[in-house]
Amino acid sequence: MQALSSIIRRTTAGFLVGILLLAAPALAQETGDVSTFTLDNGLQVVVIPDHRAPVVTHMIWYKVGSADEKPGESGIAHFLEHLMFKGTEKHPAGEFSARIAEIGGNENAFTTQDYTAYYQQVAPEALPMVMEFEADRMRGLVLTDEVIAPERAVIIEERRMRVDNDPGATLMEEVQATLYQNHPYRLPVIGWLQEMQTLDRGHAVAFYERYYVPNNAVLVVTGDVTSEKVRELADQTYGMVARGSDLPPRTRPQEPEQDTMRTVTLRDPRVSVPSFQKQWVVPSYSNGGKGEAEALDLLAEILGGGIRSRLYQQLIVKTGMAASAGASYDGGALDDGRFAIYGVPRGDASLEAVEKAADAEIARIASEGVSEDELRRAKNRFVRGMIFARDNQAGMARIYGSTLATGGTVEDLAEWPQRIEAVTVGQVKAAAARWLDQSRSVTGYLLPASEGDPQ
Amino acid sequence: MQALSSIIRRTTAGFLVGILLLAAPALAQETGDVSTFTLDNGLQVVVIPDHRAPVVTHMIWYKVGSADEKPGESGIAHFLEHLMFKGTEKHPAGEFSARIAEIGGNENAFTTQDYTAYYQQVAPEALPMVMEFEADRMRGLVLTDEVIAPERAVIIEERRMRVDNDPGATLMEEVQATLYQNHPYRLPVIGWLQEMQTLDRGHAVAFYERYYVPNNAVLVVTGDVTSEKVRELADQTYGMVARGSDLPPRTRPQEPEQDTMRTVTLRDPRVSVPSFQKQWVVPSYSNGGKGEAEALDLLAEILGGGIRSRLYQQLIVKTGMAASAGASYDGGALDDGRFAIYGVPRGDASLEAVEKAADAEIARIASEGVSEDELRRAKNRFVRGMIFARDNQAGMARIYGSTLATGGTVEDLAEWPQRIEAVTVGQVKAAAARWLDQSRSVTGYLLPASEGDPQ
Repeated sequence: MQALSSIIRRTTAGFLVGILLLAAPALAQETGDVSTFTLDNGLQVVVIPDHRAPVVTHMIWYKVGSADEKPGESGIAHFLEHLMFKGTEKHPAGEFSARIAEIGGNENAFTTQDYTAYYQQVAPEALPMVMEFEADRMRGLVLTDEVIAPERAVIIEERRMRVDNDPGATLMEEVQATLYQNHPYRLPVIGWLQEMQTLDRGHAVAFYERYYVPNNAVLVVTGDVTSEKVRELADQTYGMVARGSDLPPRTRPQEPEQDTMRTVTLRDPRVSVPSFQKQWVVPSYSNGGKGEAEALDLLAEILGGGIRSRLYQQLIVKTGMAASAGASYDGGALDDGRFAIYGVPRGDASLEAVEKAADAEIARIASEGVSEDELRRAKNRFVRGMIFARDNQAGMARIYGSTLATGGTVEDLAEWPQRIEAVTVGQVKAAAARWLDQSRSVTGYLLPASEGDPQ
Repeated sequence: MQALSSIIRRTTAGFLVGILLLAAPALAQETGDVSTFTLDNGLQVVVIPDHRAPVVTHMIWYKVGSADEKPGESGIAHFLEHLMFKGTEKHPAGEFSARIAEIGGNENAFTTQDYTAYYQQVAPEALPMVMEFEADRMRGLVLTDEVIAPERAVIIEERRMRVDNDPGATLMEEVQATLYQNHPYRLPVIGWLQEMQTLDRGHAVAFYERYYVPNNAVLVVTGDVTSEKVRELADQTYGMVARGSDLPPRTRPQEPEQDTMRTVTLRDPRVSVPSFQKQWVVPSYSNGGKGEAEALDLLAEILGGGIRSRLYQQLIVKTGMAASAGASYDGGALDDGRFAIYGVPRGDASLEAVEKAADAEIARIASEGVSEDELRRAKNRFVRGMIFARDNQAGMARIYGSTLATGGTVEDLAEWPQRIEAVTVGQVKAAAARWLDQSRSVTGYLLPASEGDPQ
């Protein structure tokens, strides 16, 4: 029971990260306090001291996610995240979690399309213990059939609860499968049911052996600790772990040119209020041209990033037609990014009217652009949001870890505020015109069973 | 020039087979005349004598198609089909084709999602020559960079002509990518452009070495020849080719449960008349339950299989709203099959009206079923169609080859007429109700640039 609920709690966070990474793009931060070094076995270490409170956050990031899975093995990355809480040669299952709980710490783990991360927040004196346990399970996991089969039942139950019993999640899954025609980002992180059912010890061992190696990981420690202390502890713990085989570059099948406008509709009696979401494949910080991802970040902010945004002002405040509306950009992916808008009608307004009004706001930016003042305020709000995120150890660790796990550098993070600052009104307009093209969008409709066709 | 046009001619046939396999399901045929045997190296041989004319048709089928390609290497199966016309250690490029042309023969080749086949039709006395050449290129191909690069330019140009310059083909490609959420049937046989551009000698050699082996092939010879003669020639030619490594079962990622209704829309100034096509993933002869594929075959015949069909009678003859309408079922796949309907409005009729009328015909069968008499006539028409197909050497060779290359047997073909005969009105109704569900359909719309949204 305890184990099950703890796993579900962990995975909730994982799903949130997958969906809301948009909320954690690169962070404004001088590199002055941040130190990085690499152990002989290839483990990259980042230390970000923060002595305001006697707490440390310890995160290890493996550069592997669901988009790295072999065809037919969807869900194995997330399954392995679960299995990492089983026993090792040195420690029985549950011991690590029990020790964290005993001292009042928190732990968490999550799997996304691009990486898998494990997290603990504890008092500084517990850091050596945490590092010993985490280093131990990097290579010491004992994966027997007795461990595999019950945990497979757990992830299948998790899928049933979180996806199959939730029309919104089911729709999101099939929107994603439609949005990506070739890239493995189309696959659900949790896996397709029929493939999850076949995951066995052989798959788990092969995945673990290949990807859970120090030369495929990034350690991020933030909080009340010094770089010297982390280096000393890292040498004693992770430093003892043998380097694994070199991994080839993370080359996944890429998206072809998309030429069509697509819709995905789910009607379900459990839906009471209709809604739409519209998505586009767009560049990311990893693969975009100079300033392109930054412009998309600011476009999302201006279009639908809060109560000052155009969608909020026009659809909710001015016309009152929408109960909810917004936009988001996920630029943190290793390959293509994703831009999304969404809307929910209010009162008698039709879903179609809300969608058309949202489309009109995009068209307006694409044709008329945004004002200097609007861009100025968006930059301020955006950078301020990042400052709030920085004012939080876990947020810091997450920003550094996700950036380094997707090919970014500490320098990228340091330069990021200047790069946001440099975005021009012309770039924002160009991003809207070039990327938010209706003829290559994918729109998901979540409708009550009795609702007429919105189209 | 000659080489280029010959390749394009060959591949045209390939594309037709991919699309129209529906027209060639299993054939009514007693096994009396058909003999099969397997060479020591694993090559399966089927001989179907037909002495009405001094002609033989020789086809070799490799059990590999685009759905067997590695992720990121789309197009390699079709590329290899092209490369098979290059030189071998014994014969320079073009010699085989020149010899066929010299004696007034025909040759052809095509690649589908499940198999790749090479075909020659010649006078019986040329059969030893054909078998010598075909056996020689099974293992003797010389794949140098000098051969690869120009041929890659040819397939890329082929894609540009056949897909990128044709809005209908572009739409069909993205409908397919939407229809299959997980199975590699979503990939175009010709390949995605950005992956075709990276195909090199390494990919071609690996694919050839793995799949072009006698134990992964089926030889079908029909026409004015005896089984004894074919066996003698096969021993002297293919029999000399070394067996390859055993191949694992052809297990591809399968489709998840589909829960959503999807649309794919392409507007293009080159389109003058709008049209729609609606597709469903359905069982095939390979993976369906008893009688399920047979019922789907008859459902397609009753719904839209010609001028006696319901779609034709209702939409074209009675209301006159459609210029064209029909239905088809492709049950010949190794994995899931596909069911499709299509319609084109006439005069002032709207595309939406035609689609609704077609949907209504499906709903009527799903709720009211079909009549005994209607089913009787459909079976007669259907089996008669197969008799015409049999009355043709190439058709025969194609029916046997495609069945054997997708896991079927000669016995399946022999029993097929009885299995069609056994389909009941209840099974046809059940197939429509179970599979042609709008809430899991994918509809493609091909629209003029100025046309209003059909939805």
